Amino acid sequence: MEDVSSSFGERFRISTFGESHGGGVGVVVDGCPPRLRIDVEEIQQELDRRRPGQSRLTTPRQEADRVEILSGVFEGHSLGSPIAMLVRNQDARPSAYEHLKDVYRPSHADWTTEAKYGIRAWHGGGRSSARETIGRVAAGAIARRLLAEVAGIEIVAWVQKVQNIDAKVEPESVQRAEVEASLVRCPDPEASEKMIERVDTVRRAQDSVGGIVGCVARGVPPGLGEPIFQKLDAELAAAMLSLPAAKAFEVGSGFRGIALTGSQHNDAMKPGEAGNPVWASNRSGGIQGGISNGAPIELQVAFKPTATVGVAQETVDREGEAVTLEASGRHDPCVLPRAVPIVEAMVALVLADHWLRQRAVDVLPPLPE
Amino acid sequence: MEDVSSSFGERFRISTFGESHGGGVGVVVDGCPPRLRIDVEEIQQELDRRRPGQSRLTTPRQEADRVEILSGVFEGHSLGSPIAMLVRNQDARPSAYEHLKDVYRPSHADWTTEAKYGIRAWHGGGRSSARETIGRVAAGAIARRLLAEVAGIEIVAWVQKVQNIDAKVEPESVQRAEVEASLVRCPDPEASEKMIERVDTVRRAQDSVGGIVGCVARGVPPGLGEPIFQKLDAELAAAMLSLPAAKAFEVGSGFRGIALTGSQHNDAMKPGEAGNPVWASNRSGGIQGGISNGAPIELQVAFKPTATVGVAQETVDREGEAVTLEASGRHDPCVLPRAVPIVEAMVALVLADHWLRQRAVDVLPPLPE
Amino acid sequence: MEDVSSSFGERFRISTFGESHGGGVGVVVDGCPPRLRIDVEEIQQELDRRRPGQSRLTTPRQEADRVEILSGVFEGHSLGSPIAMLVRNQDARPSAYEHLKDVYRPSHADWTTEAKYGIRAWHGGGRSSARETIGRVAAGAIARRLLAEVAGIEIVAWVQKVQNIDAKVEPESVQRAEVEASLVRCPDPEASEKMIERVDTVRRAQDSVGGIVGCVARGVPPGLGEPIFQKLDAELAAAMLSLPAAKAFEVGSGFRGIALTGSQHNDAMKPGEAGNPVWASNRSGGIQGGISNGAPIELQVAFKPTATVGVAQETVDREGEAVTLEASGRHDPCVLPRAVPIVEAMVALVLADHWLRQRAVDVLPPLPE
Amino acid sequence: MEDVSSSFGERFRISTFGESHGGGVGVVVDGCPPRLRIDVEEIQQELDRRRPGQSRLTTPRQEADRVEILSGVFEGHSLGSPIAMLVRNQDARPSAYEHLKDVYRPSHADWTTEAKYGIRAWHGGGRSSARETIGRVAAGAIARRLLAEVAGIEIVAWVQKVQNIDAKVEPESVQRAEVEASLVRCPDPEASEKMIERVDTVRRAQDSVGGIVGCVARGVPPGLGEPIFQKLDAELAAAMLSLPAAKAFEVGSGFRGIALTGSQHNDAMKPGEAGNPVWASNRSGGIQGGISNGAPIELQVAFKPTATVGVAQETVDREGEAVTLEASGRHDPCVLPRAVPIVEAMVALVLADHWLRQRAVDVLPPLPE
Repeated sequence: MEDVSSSFGERFRISTFGESHGGGVGVVVDGCPPRLRIDVEEIQQELDRRRPGQSRLTTPRQEADRVEILSGVFEGHSLGSPIAMLVRNQDARPSAYEHLKDVYRPSHADWTTEAKYGIRAWHGGGRSSARETIGRVAAGAIARRLLAEVAGIEIVAWVQKVQNIDAKVEPESVQRAEVEASLVRCPDPEASEKMIERVDTVRRAQDSVGGIVGCVARGVPPGLGEPIFQKLDAELAAAMLSLPAAKAFEVGSGFRGIALTGSQHNDAMKPGEAGNPVWASNRSGGIQGGISNGAPIELQVAFKPTATVGVAQETVDREGEAVTLEASGRHDPCVLPRAVPIVEAMVALVLADHWLRQRAVDVLPPLPE
Repeated sequence: MEDVSSSFGERFRISTFGESHGGGVGVVVDGCPPRLRIDVEEIQQELDRRRPGQSRLTTPRQEADRVEILSGVFEGHSLGSPIAMLVRNQDARPSAYEHLKDVYRPSHADWTTEAKYGIRAWHGGGRSSARETIGRVAAGAIARRLLAEVAGIEIVAWVQKVQNIDAKVEPESVQRAEVEASLVRCPDPEASEKMIERVDTVRRAQDSVGGIVGCVARGVPPGLGEPIFQKLDAELAAAMLSLPAAKAFEVGSGFRGIALTGSQHNDAMKPGEAGNPVWASNRSGGIQGGISNGAPIELQVAFKPTATVGVAQETVDREGEAVTLEASGRHDPCVLPRAVPIVEAMVALVLADHWLRQRAVDVLPPLPE
Repeated sequence: MEDVSSSFGERFRISTFGESHGGGVGVVVDGCPPRLRIDVEEIQQELDRRRPGQSRLTTPRQEADRVEILSGVFEGHSLGSPIAMLVRNQDARPSAYEHLKDVYRPSHADWTTEAKYGIRAWHGGGRSSARETIGRVAAGAIARRLLAEVAGIEIVAWVQKVQNIDAKVEPESVQRAEVEASLVRCPDPEASEKMIERVDTVRRAQDSVGGIVGCVARGVPPGLGEPIFQKLDAELAAAMLSLPAAKAFEVGSGFRGIALTGSQHNDAMKPGEAGNPVWASNRSGGIQGGISNGAPIELQVAFKPTATVGVAQETVDREGEAVTLEASGRHDPCVLPRAVPIVEAMVALVLADHWLRQRAVDVLPPLPE
Repeated sequence: MEDVSSSFGERFRISTFGESHGGGVGVVVDGCPPRLRIDVEEIQQELDRRRPGQSRLTTPRQEADRVEILSGVFEGHSLGSPIAMLVRNQDARPSAYEHLKDVYRPSHADWTTEAKYGIRAWHGGGRSSARETIGRVAAGAIARRLLAEVAGIEIVAWVQKVQNIDAKVEPESVQRAEVEASLVRCPDPEASEKMIERVDTVRRAQDSVGGIVGCVARGVPPGLGEPIFQKLDAELAAAMLSLPAAKAFEVGSGFRGIALTGSQHNDAMKPGEAGNPVWASNRSGGIQGGISNGAPIELQVAFKPTATVGVAQETVDREGEAVTLEASGRHDPCVLPRAVPIVEAMVALVLADHWLRQRAVDVLPPLPE
């Protein structure tokens, strides 16, 4: 846990900045090792997966979200110094938010922001806008590149569930291309179709739905994560719950595991190669005692239905009086498709951080037998 | 997220130390404000709720777990300097673990610890033993005292579910005395009875069960938590997933909230007193945009069935050969009753930390209208 | 001490970014309390005191160094969110540095940067350029505003010594206007004149000189600083030694104090008002046991002569061969006048950080007598 | 800079605890790599060099200062978990301090501690006692072992100056045995004799003297230290100024370097072996741009004369009234001999931390030419 609110990670550390309406949003990545190949187009691709207006299922707010690398890169490689990246805000319409100046939107951060700070950038969500995640995704693209180069780690997220529509997905084998082939980023074609239909329905009703994003990280070496407070699953949980609208987190068997007894739940170990066991099952989700065990890391995150809806809601204004809030600006009927690249980015950031941290653990020769 | 593995919190910061077998376990609390009344018996009471051997439902390992305050307290009050607390290990039987020297227990931290460190204190769980949580509970007792004195906050946890036995509990009103009246720490007498029976059954079968602990913090002032990465729910999630055997976390409506649409899920606001709205519902679990909103903070944590069981299991040894593990030392058939005070301690630590952090936010006079 | 290289401070925390040649340099300020008046012109004024080309005594490199506030400010006040500030590089002439691509300048960071990172932005000093201090000065202007508003603290630095020319300055009373009235920022007119002459002489000789900057902070309340590692003087020492070309630091009597015996050196205490003693002397430099005592905080910093000189020097190239380095780009014959606002900024950053930290210490009522 | 007062370092991180009178003092070392040989006698030897009562030149307070390792070590090797070490207080005579309950000793931390915390352990120096440095020395012994094993680094400190008696010492070659051969830890026999005489004289006068400790670290590989705020010299400065009674710090040429011009001061580079240049001089003190350059790291620290003296002093009491303080407990007439192992310990801690940090920087293959 950091003392200041906008930094994440220790060795691979990001600090995001920016409000939804203003000069722009961005991120400073500190601790990226030198000599990593940095390709601005690779970063831009991830931002394009996150940006609004990419399909009819997302908010109609149009933002090109072009990223500029301000520092830390020289002739296509990282210098080891902070990599600052900036995305200018473009489709900002503060006037569209004039009616929100003195009214708090239910289940948003409006009232709590004012309770905390005594001041609020009421043009859009201010700092609590989902635009803040641009910095996470840009930084995550660099973390992902690092993980691929040093350890061959690959990370795939997908929409597992929309409201009550559940998908069939195999974490061991699901591919990003299958995810991207679906408008709603669900790699199960049958579920995908139903999900799209559902989102269209609630969109027309000016309402919203939530659901579950699943994610897997394959190729994670054993030994990442710290055994006490910075357990790998604890840090993943914090990363996921730090996302807008996230309400729950599971690793491995999660809530479902409690139906079993211990002897049923345990992941039996079998002889494997190069000193690594083969795991007969993966209820641990690739993490035991907070430390990766070499099996795929599997997690799920629940996102509540978007709080911004087009139907009338009871709320209060700055004077504490009851008012009815009619419409609440452009919004996503379902955040899940856009949450997929953000979840992947956060997982990449946690793993890059812990991979680098382990470098300072494993420094002495093995003990003599 | 901290760089080193055994510290938690920023302003109210704890560092635990110690293995299950060795000189002892303990904690250093740094950042406790000066002039707080510190009562060693109050701390001991919390340790007694956590200690093994307190009932037939827990491990028969007997530890008095008497705490000694080494520093930071003078004439019954905190000095503002680090408060170090030590609990000596007493019922240590390293020989009882001799058979585990070269064998990895399934779904324990045995193999991952060795993968990470290349060395392992194989007498018991070493650093990954649940004894590590002694330091958390001792420190949590101080955090709880601070929260009670400065803000009137009260924290109550309970066993919500054991395997498929679910309890009826009202977070708004549940009292600690009701929890403590139950051997299994479930305040619903009917469910409590069934849970006790279930635990007895699996205990006799030398097996184990898991379940869910619920927790509420009442009286938390609005404004605690940071809006981006250190969201109050993100830090609570990390705190909970840092507990041994924890597999999932929910705040407010959690996974269940995704069944609703946005207009159904939103917590409507109504006029209240002193500028604070009344919340018509609490699906947010007392936190919106990562910041407390004044409603009770409600969370749930899933604990898997204890990995230590008395039935035979397939595993591997240090040579990578398949072996059958027959018995695995003394164990808890169900960790949940002992997890209750630990969950409370972690919630207290997170809230104390954020309450102190907010002191450095709210320093300037209100803006003129 | 932070783990990543470009952040400073805990509660009032800055992260700088940027190289001397590239998109620009800047800073993110995190932890600035909300509702602080932020005036971009006030920040610009401090940058103007630091910028190159401001007089014939500084490098002829011309940079307007106009600052843009990207985030964290709304209608003239801080939001409590990160304040990102950017200064674009303008007078960048990478070609002027072509001859430095493969040669290391003596007593610069050229060789050590390459030893550390294995890559180097050889256009100018890269990350080790003095342009990095732009972010410190911009952030320092905000810290200074905070300190003035909450505690009436004022900070004045000056050039105390150039080579062997020493000035007579009274820390208790010296005013910024007196400092600014001197081209070399020395408030002693006689010494100032000699210093200017000396700098002109070495400038014509294409050589350089160093000296000492003095600084005082008046109005600092008692109680700031931590008693062990984060002593106020320890943090000031780190802040000063983090400046380019700094080689030494003194607080209070410094090296000179060792000529005295303890009975001569001690600062006797006399009865004062409101519980605060009057200090008969200030050899402690306003800090005792690492904690401010209410007297003016007094410190001195030595800066070596600028390493960039126009005379020929023996060095090596990337092949390890001996070469003669003839000229080394535009440079300051004496960095001290421009170091004055930078020293003030760093002192302001340390004090703002500790002032905010103390807010989380002083939270409980006084002990009963 | 850390937020809480008693921790130091990032990757090799120590947290000290304990007051001068109470249960004891100690330290928790977190981040020590696993599989390091830990020898309690080696640690004890360093504590013996620091302990009071070791010669007639130090305070007559007798403390055996026997260290107990509570955790983190298994069969003679580090586990990678926190290493907690405890030294019990033995020769505590709280009654000897009864007269100091309501009186502030001049130039001590008495008054500032009370100003900061509103409570004070008035039996002895409380937390500000030099006994706190026991934890630093114990941890430093482990850091020194790590540095010797992984990098062959050796650290030697000595008394360079007592009042006006200056020693002749060659940092490139001075040996610990030469230092230990002198009662006052000055390796120049002639100066040593004069220093001993001087200390004896002030001791008989119940007064005290200060001086300078010099220190060298040889064998430090190039590339340690961060280029901006965590410059190696900035962290060493913070480490040194965090020591009781330290008032000034120099690296390399320090204050003396300002007598030279840039062309005189620069350290010319000459062709060397294995890509490392030979440095023609070492005015940089082994650090350029905050990063080690392979030359010996050389620093000096000034310690004021001990504030505790036996002669009468004017001061105030808790009521703010003027009083005369007659005697002030047992004290060291000169802290420098005992400061030598403490300075070495702090230098070892800084270097161990940065050596580990560099492990996470140097991870990718060299750039292609």
